[in-house]
Amino acid sequence: MSAGPFAGLLVLDLTRVLAGPHAALMMVELGARVIKIEPPEGDDARRYGPFVTGENGVAKSGYFMSINRGKESIALDLKKSEDRKILEALLMRADVLIENYRGCTMEKLGYGWESLKDKYPRLIYAAVSGFGHTGPYAARPAYDMVVQAMGGIMSLTGHPGGPPTRVGTSIGDLTAALFGTVGIASALYDREKTGRGQKVDVGMLDCQVAILENAIARYVATGDVPGPLGTRHPSIAPFAAFKTKDDYIVIAAGNDALFARMSKVLGREEWPRDPRFATNPARIEHLDALHSEMESALTGRTAKEWLRRLEAEGVPCAPINNIADVMADPQVLARNMIVTADDPDLGPVRMQGNPIKLSVYDDLSSRPAAPELDGDRSKILKELGLASD
Amino acid sequence: MSAGPFAGLLVLDLTRVLAGPHAALMMVELGARVIKIEPPEGDDARRYGPFVTGENGVAKSGYFMSINRGKESIALDLKKSEDRKILEALLMRADVLIENYRGCTMEKLGYGWESLKDKYPRLIYAAVSGFGHTGPYAARPAYDMVVQAMGGIMSLTGHPGGPPTRVGTSIGDLTAALFGTVGIASALYDREKTGRGQKVDVGMLDCQVAILENAIARYVATGDVPGPLGTRHPSIAPFAAFKTKDDYIVIAAGNDALFARMSKVLGREEWPRDPRFATNPARIEHLDALHSEMESALTGRTAKEWLRRLEAEGVPCAPINNIADVMADPQVLARNMIVTADDPDLGPVRMQGNPIKLSVYDDLSSRPAAPELDGDRSKILKELGLASD
Repeated sequence: MSAGPFAGLLVLDLTRVLAGPHAALMMVELGARVIKIEPPEGDDARRYGPFVTGENGVAKSGYFMSINRGKESIALDLKKSEDRKILEALLMRADVLIENYRGCTMEKLGYGWESLKDKYPRLIYAAVSGFGHTGPYAARPAYDMVVQAMGGIMSLTGHPGGPPTRVGTSIGDLTAALFGTVGIASALYDREKTGRGQKVDVGMLDCQVAILENAIARYVATGDVPGPLGTRHPSIAPFAAFKTKDDYIVIAAGNDALFARMSKVLGREEWPRDPRFATNPARIEHLDALHSEMESALTGRTAKEWLRRLEAEGVPCAPINNIADVMADPQVLARNMIVTADDPDLGPVRMQGNPIKLSVYDDLSSRPAAPELDGDRSKILKELGLASD
Repeated sequence: MSAGPFAGLLVLDLTRVLAGPHAALMMVELGARVIKIEPPEGDDARRYGPFVTGENGVAKSGYFMSINRGKESIALDLKKSEDRKILEALLMRADVLIENYRGCTMEKLGYGWESLKDKYPRLIYAAVSGFGHTGPYAARPAYDMVVQAMGGIMSLTGHPGGPPTRVGTSIGDLTAALFGTVGIASALYDREKTGRGQKVDVGMLDCQVAILENAIARYVATGDVPGPLGTRHPSIAPFAAFKTKDDYIVIAAGNDALFARMSKVLGREEWPRDPRFATNPARIEHLDALHSEMESALTGRTAKEWLRRLEAEGVPCAPINNIADVMADPQVLARNMIVTADDPDLGPVRMQGNPIKLSVYDDLSSRPAAPELDGDRSKILKELGLASD
């Protein structure tokens, strides 16, 4: 794991739970050395279930492990002067600091960007917070659930007339981690040119706005407020999930040629000549009729059979895979998207891989485990020339 | 917009619709010059509604505009030798090429990475495709809908027992754009150290696996296949959307202290002493009782009143904003997350801003518009020293 574009860089990870730790994980995956600086009680996520229990009886959070693999850990109480000295010695060597406290916490500790920038002019200071460090909500706490609700994606997800629906993963945290990492990487590039560090300020709410995509364009163009659409696409048909004899499948026949091929597979060659279905605008206008005729055609065979026939004709389609299906999918496995971390207590634990495949670097199928809390203290202090206590 | 960490870099954007164009948009936002190389008929997204119509009667896709602002455009038919010469002249000057064809299309055109890497050794070649360029599905087409279904997120989104539910924005495309941009930025940094370009290969399906987060950890730890949870969090309560007198609100009282404060606001001071609700594990065990008691308490006041009271006590909570609410939110506006592009035909058009706030660079509130198809041909040919036809 030491090989990667960011090999040789030192990242201090003062983050907890998900958004910040995931940004730091991407730095690990790209070759950086990441030291996780935890409070004495450790990252809260160490206590989030479910837990994996080893043969020796040791139980560890599967959630924590998957987001903190390959990092080192040192526990520091930033209110104590001896621990502040350690952080300051680390800052002298660090290239990047990532924190995800709410706005103003680092200032209160004396480690806000304004305090650090003159002392560590090459440091890249990345803050991943709920609302960013400016504006009226800067000091408010946030969770994924909060920004999914405030940022509009919850108003677009679900079925018309149904209850609110959260995206089933913490997309509020994860997109902030991704935009944050883009910011860090671009600032590192910038520093190569200028020698100067800078602050990267990413707010989770902002990131939700950035991924609203065509919902903003629709609202701006028409004044109509977009609502949830189930599995439907707002302007392309057929492009949705459909029930077969057994399971649902997705069919994405996004243009007239694909629609004709799909109609043939479903045994309804006449559909492309039916004025209700001949063009995409006509199909959108007669969407209920189209969907009900499609589902009536699809009841005759199982999901598996339909997928085989649709694929053979080149019609984009997919099963709705659950997590077990995903983890056994031949493409997912061929792409090394399920890797194992070898934990000293638990043995190999499967987790998500890295989707950024770089031609120059190996994409190993095994990763170093997540650290024990404070597990690298003595090694780190020795490197810093500080006595261990 | 010329200012940013990637100022001075030339990016060739051979992409269409969403995933690739969005990665190239991030390069624009970070200061790069991006030339969009379109087929003679233009990016398909130019024909995706809804359209904004100017006073002069010109109609343009709001969707296309928001993803392609600030780029230049030249239309090239890569099967014609004169146009291939133009692309090759551009490649001589380019730092990055981004393409989102399905695996093997660029090889067929003679512009695969293997063909380019010796001729353009400093080039960073970024492919954002449905399934990546290796593995059994490499040549298959994909859409956002397809990878949302295959990648597992659809199995986690929605309500238990309900129909499948798509995430309401194209998260399959957008996460691939984000991981792709992280890859590009890291490869640019690497090139500063080594002088060498490389290929960045990002598959949309892989990116879906990478954002499954605790669903994989839950499955690995327990063997239970996670399903959809509505708005609930899998292991924290109360952490969901709740109905008030009028609208739903989100309450994320993620620990005992917050639960006690929330109980006080709801006029149910006794809840923290109720053995069913005293701890998070107890609340998870008695979730139905907790939710129904909370909703019965919440019916007394409107969403707005409850949010005011919960906020005053520091309990994380949020309205479920629709797109109109989001675009009027004071924090969203203060963070410059709604910007305008000044289109020559339409005037200022509002769209999403850039969530990566860098301390060294201005975050302007106005952006250059998206280009006309082939609108920069003569300027580009002149720069290349090629005659315009």
